[in-house]
Amino acid sequence: MPLVGPLKLKAQLLCGDELAMGPGKADLLEAIQTEGSISGAGRSLGMSYRRTWLLVDAMNRCWSESLVEATPGGGQHRGARVTPAGLEVLAAYRALEAAVAAAAEGPLKALQAKLREEPRASRHEASQPEG
Amino acid sequence: MPLVGPLKLKAQLLCGDELAMGPGKADLLEAIQTEGSISGAGRSLGMSYRRTWLLVDAMNRCWSESLVEATPGGGQHRGARVTPAGLEVLAAYRALEAAVAAAAEGPLKALQAKLREEPRASRHEASQPEG
Repeated sequence: MPLVGPLKLKAQLLCGDELAMGPGKADLLEAIQTEGSISGAGRSLGMSYRRTWLLVDAMNRCWSESLVEATPGGGQHRGARVTPAGLEVLAAYRALEAAVAAAAEGPLKALQAKLREEPRASRHEASQPEG
Repeated sequence: MPLVGPLKLKAQLLCGDELAMGPGKADLLEAIQTEGSISGAGRSLGMSYRRTWLLVDAMNRCWSESLVEATPGGGQHRGARVTPAGLEVLAAYRALEAAVAAAAEGPLKALQAKLREEPRASRHEASQPEG
């Protein structure tokens, strides 16, 4: 998820009511590439196997081709990899994030000029504005 | 929050650990403009007075000038309005949202070509990919 100074941007792609791609799923694809398995990727991101598997399943159901597939072989060392279609979706999503972050830089300046670095202390609620 | 086809974009401005501006706070400023009071704005957005007041308080503490102020007068009909500084921040935030949405349109096309309209049905977990 790109952070441009004090600005947090989040891009989510929906497929019906399901989240097809977002910051967490993109990170998961990268972790599967690195770890070579769904379980290893989940572990590296601090997620349960069940949650990791559900995210992979959602991705595989939302796109015309699966983004993750089991690697050939079997047994204990069976792994998973990001498919060529998955690598394309991942690259296009990261490009979208970068384009969005670049576009925010100009408009952000007008806001940053007025934004404090730290919030003022909260007034006691007894003095809350009426109305 | 801009929706570009299947893409949901969210821009949040942080001040320290506090959220200074985001989709909900921008909507709240617009509702205060329309309703002329914090309580009326909260009601129109289906929020409790306490939650509405906390959002206003956070906004007023995060920017160099208050974004919302009580209108002169008093008693039961005392209201609130968005200050000139608040109107500037609101306009700049909406401009940022629009710039971000426009920048997403091109990169989105590569993704949309592969995105299904509706997800495939979930396979039974018994058939979950191993690894």
